[in-house]
Amino acid sequence: MSENGIIAQAVRAAKDAVGNKLLVATDACFCEYTDHGHCGVLRDAPSGGKDVDNDTTLENLVRQVLVQARAGVDLIAPSGMMDGMVRAIRSSLDREGFKRIPVMSYAAKFASAFYGPFREAAESTPQFGDRRTYQMDPAASSGQAMREVALDLQEGADIIMLKPALAYLDIIRMVRDRFEGVPIAAYNVSGEYSMVKAAVANGWLDEKAVVLESLTAMTRAGASIILTYWAKDVAKWL
Amino acid sequence: MSENGIIAQAVRAAKDAVGNKLLVATDACFCEYTDHGHCGVLRDAPSGGKDVDNDTTLENLVRQVLVQARAGVDLIAPSGMMDGMVRAIRSSLDREGFKRIPVMSYAAKFASAFYGPFREAAESTPQFGDRRTYQMDPAASSGQAMREVALDLQEGADIIMLKPALAYLDIIRMVRDRFEGVPIAAYNVSGEYSMVKAAVANGWLDEKAVVLESLTAMTRAGASIILTYWAKDVAKWL
Repeated sequence: MSENGIIAQAVRAAKDAVGNKLLVATDACFCEYTDHGHCGVLRDAPSGGKDVDNDTTLENLVRQVLVQARAGVDLIAPSGMMDGMVRAIRSSLDREGFKRIPVMSYAAKFASAFYGPFREAAESTPQFGDRRTYQMDPAASSGQAMREVALDLQEGADIIMLKPALAYLDIIRMVRDRFEGVPIAAYNVSGEYSMVKAAVANGWLDEKAVVLESLTAMTRAGASIILTYWAKDVAKWL
Repeated sequence: MSENGIIAQAVRAAKDAVGNKLLVATDACFCEYTDHGHCGVLRDAPSGGKDVDNDTTLENLVRQVLVQARAGVDLIAPSGMMDGMVRAIRSSLDREGFKRIPVMSYAAKFASAFYGPFREAAESTPQFGDRRTYQMDPAASSGQAMREVALDLQEGADIIMLKPALAYLDIIRMVRDRFEGVPIAAYNVSGEYSMVKAAVANGWLDEKAVVLESLTAMTRAGASIILTYWAKDVAKWL
């Protein structure tokens, strides 16, 4: 949350390097920085044990986001699925003169087994429990995901992010059908990436064909933005 | 197409073994038997080269299906996506007294890179060209898939099959939303299976978690039947 923190420095360096040729986006969350691996401040839960204190986390999130904004970021993507997260960020950005920075909200982020490889790389697996109290259960009704999207739009989200992508194409389709004109971003996560890489290494799948088919599927389902580890490959292929 | 062909023998053996405890289903198609690997009879195309003769293929398909019906099969799944396929099969079954055998139509079968491992195992990769003149292009509009489903229902299909499953969850969702009450089967194909197996072998994914999440996604999208190589594992896990 310091003006000279690693993200602030990285944003300034990136903007110095690419100017307006590339969009620089930041993920606003805390699981990367906490020793317990959860997405916010812990408190003693009323029922015993620990849980994430939603409202204290929101205060920190606003401080984090304003540092990123002052560093020159183009887009902010809060990923923690805290309640009221989008409204807190949007109103703080507006108040501090950053009306033009869009908020891309992780509106429906499922507690997924496809995050495995990322968590290992980022060493961000929670030290106890899991994130299911603030991320969505994959077995939850799709109606619940629609409510999360509706809430985030009400709170002022500019872009709706859905994550993971491939095993949630039905959710992308529903958001496309039910929220006319809303930009949808699909996050093609590490597990989706690594399983194709593993099969390709064994000679079982054709990487280019499978990747283009999968990204086409995300577009067909309704995504207008795709976040993918294959971005540079696809830029060459197309 | 002989009454003592390999499929007829296999159906009789399977029904003798399992009685009414298991449903015995057959895939009605020809790509497994043709030296060229296409799904039907070839003819000289009007534009030069060869293509699949739709109507002659339908005649053979009816002969094949009636052999399977007389052998005692419980359900017939024509997979070739020939025009008029469901009507030809349904009316022949009805005429010959097999009204109770349901037809599960491969209504929207996409020409997919996820079939790679199956084709290699079955040695059924077409010797020339591909199946895109009768299978659907993954980049085609989802509206085209809806028309294929509507046509197959009109022709008398009892169950609608969509294939592959994971990268087509948006299509499953659309069929569920647009065709109230129609049983949908999702075919979780060899490429989808093998990429998880490859990643699990590398220690990158948790097989049980990823498989249950993926099958849950197919159900959430709208499938009421799932064809999967994990069937026996899932029966133990649940």
